[in-house]
Amino acid sequence: MAKSSSRTALRLRLMHGDRVAMGPGKAELLECIRETGSISAAGRRMQMSYKRAWQLIEEMNACFRVSLVEASRGGRGGGGARLTPIGADVLERFRRIEQACAEVGRDDLASIRHQLERTTHT
Amino acid sequence: MAKSSSRTALRLRLMHGDRVAMGPGKAELLECIRETGSISAAGRRMQMSYKRAWQLIEEMNACFRVSLVEASRGGRGGGGARLTPIGADVLERFRRIEQACAEVGRDDLASIRHQLERTTHT
Repeated sequence: MAKSSSRTALRLRLMHGDRVAMGPGKAELLECIRETGSISAAGRRMQMSYKRAWQLIEEMNACFRVSLVEASRGGRGGGGARLTPIGADVLERFRRIEQACAEVGRDDLASIRHQLERTTHT
Repeated sequence: MAKSSSRTALRLRLMHGDRVAMGPGKAELLECIRETGSISAAGRRMQMSYKRAWQLIEEMNACFRVSLVEASRGGRGGGGARLTPIGADVLERFRRIEQACAEVGRDDLASIRHQLERTTHT
């Protein structure tokens, strides 16, 4: 899903059983929906098909007791979309966990990074 | 790769470009190799085929400047295997990062967990 990247980075996923309830791609999609008010615009911004964006939203919504994203009237092709209060809360907490992990793991990550090959990806 | 689980948990991966240089499954495999001194025994313990275990080792070794695992004489079918000093170091650091992340993210994770559906997996 993610584009090729030369970055070395920690990637955090919140697993719920076998399912990814939240991860970097899903969190970015939520942010794009919050900013654009539209699933299709959010998908375009992430260079992701509309179908794929919907798939990710449905995966998230299925993991939680209430939906994280709700589409307003007009349906899939038409109206807008927004985060529910729970969606906004889960997003904020996930990003905070990511940030805290990056900080707490910084020194060990730097040491590991010294042992890694330089990537050939550009 | 992982067995079905009802656990809700953070899963941390160290990405190196598009590749997973280290993650929960690879770390567990390194631990099993350290404990058993054998790739085939480590694979059996993880209910993983020998081929799959080798594949994971090759993925790791390719990410790092030096191999994390070295097989002793006897080759693939025969002799033992052990972690190199770099392998042991990377494993220790990765597990430390995981532990630190679990601790630093505990409160936010607990809040998110309250919003999750109960899994139907057993």
